[in-house]
Amino acid sequence: MIRKPAVVLVSGGLDSTTTLAIALSEGYAPYALSFNYGQRHVIELDSARKVVESLGVVQHVVVDIDLRLFGGSALTSSIEVPHHAEVSELEPTIPVTYVPARNTVFLSLALAWSETLNASDIFIGVNALDYSGYPDCRPGFIGAFERMANLATKAGVEGRQKLHIHTPLIELTKAQIILRGMSLGVDYQLTHSCYDPTPLGRACGTCDSCLLRHKGFVEAGLKDPALEGY
Amino acid sequence: MIRKPAVVLVSGGLDSTTTLAIALSEGYAPYALSFNYGQRHVIELDSARKVVESLGVVQHVVVDIDLRLFGGSALTSSIEVPHHAEVSELEPTIPVTYVPARNTVFLSLALAWSETLNASDIFIGVNALDYSGYPDCRPGFIGAFERMANLATKAGVEGRQKLHIHTPLIELTKAQIILRGMSLGVDYQLTHSCYDPTPLGRACGTCDSCLLRHKGFVEAGLKDPALEGY
Repeated sequence: MIRKPAVVLVSGGLDSTTTLAIALSEGYAPYALSFNYGQRHVIELDSARKVVESLGVVQHVVVDIDLRLFGGSALTSSIEVPHHAEVSELEPTIPVTYVPARNTVFLSLALAWSETLNASDIFIGVNALDYSGYPDCRPGFIGAFERMANLATKAGVEGRQKLHIHTPLIELTKAQIILRGMSLGVDYQLTHSCYDPTPLGRACGTCDSCLLRHKGFVEAGLKDPALEGY
Repeated sequence: MIRKPAVVLVSGGLDSTTTLAIALSEGYAPYALSFNYGQRHVIELDSARKVVESLGVVQHVVVDIDLRLFGGSALTSSIEVPHHAEVSELEPTIPVTYVPARNTVFLSLALAWSETLNASDIFIGVNALDYSGYPDCRPGFIGAFERMANLATKAGVEGRQKLHIHTPLIELTKAQIILRGMSLGVDYQLTHSCYDPTPLGRACGTCDSCLLRHKGFVEAGLKDPALEGY
C-alpha cells in the first residue's frame, strides 16, 4: 500500500511527538518539519531529531527562521520565563511565553512544503484543554487557517485536492495525550517540553510547560521520564 | 500627529514600491519587511533597500527564510524561468514561477511583526488584474488570511483591535499602478521586477514580470526607466 504523504510539525515536545506517532498509526508517510526560530530552549531540536529517528519519517527538515527579529516573547527574547509552583497558579491571560503568530508562521511553512510534496495533509499537535492559552491553539484558528490555505494554493484553486489540517490532540487532556502516545510506543524520555532548561538541558520543572506536562503524567498515573529525580 | 504603524511588504519591485508610497500618503508610519528567500533575483533586495531609503520608513527588516528547502518553483530552484515575446503569450495556467505558499509565508511573518509593534495594519502590493495568475494574489485569499489572522493573535482574541490587510493595488491595472506611483513621486528607476536578471542585474525583458511591467508603462504612455535601451 502506498502511504499518503503528510507534513507533521515536530518540535521535540510531548504533544508533537504524540501527533507524529498518531500520523504514523493512521498510515501516513510523515515529512517532519521543525524550526530553529531563536527559541531559548533550542535544545528541543535535539529531541526532535531523536524523536523522528525513533519513530521513523520519510524526511526531516529543520527551517531556520529567526523570530527574534521581531521580539515580543519570553521564548525568544530577554523577557523572563515565569515560574510557578503548580498549575493552579498559571495566569488566566495569554502568557509572556506566547510567540507572536508562531503557529501561523509554522503552518504557513508546512503549507509551502505540503504543496511541493503534493500532500493534502498537515498534522499539528495543538491542544485546547491543558494548554497555555495561546490564541493560535484554538479550533477556531485552525479552521480559519484551513479555509485560507485552500484559497492560497495551486491545488486549492484548481480544485484538485482539499488541504486538511489534522489536530488529533485538540480535545484531549494532557493525561489522555500521554496514554495515547504510550499505547503507540512513544518513548517520552526522548522528548523535551521545558521553556527554560538549565544550561545542561535539564527541565526546570516550574515553567508553564513543565507544570502542564507534570500534571498530565500524574493524572495518567505515570512518572515523567524527563523529570526523574524532581 | 502620531502616525499609525503599519507593516509594508517591500520586495523592491514596482507593485510593492507603489504600495509603500500609498501607505505613506495615507499617513502610516511604515515598517518595511523584505525577504531573502532563496530567490534567483536576489538583486531585488538591493532595490528594496534603495526604495525604502528613497521613500523613508521607520525601520526595514530583511528576513532570511530559505524556501529552496522545499523547492517547487522556477524562482527558487533550477527550473527555467519561461520567456515570451509578449504578454498575449503568457500561459493561462499558474506558471512555474509560482512559489508555493509564498504570500502566506510572507503575510504570516508580517503578522508576527505587526503583533509585536502593536500595529493593526499590513500593506501588500498584490494585484489581481495584470498579474501572473498566482492563487495567493486574489481577493478571496486576502480576505481569508485576514479572518484567520484575527483569530491567531492576542489582539484579535482580546478584541482590542482588528487587523486589516490593505491591498491598494488589487483592482488596478499595471498602467494605473504606475500612474498612481508617479503622482506620489515614486522613482521607478530604483525598482526591480525581473525574475531572471543578467549576472549584472539587468532586466531580461521577456519574463512574465518584465512583460507585464513593460505593458503597463506602454499603456500609461511612459517609458520604463528600468528597461531603457530595450
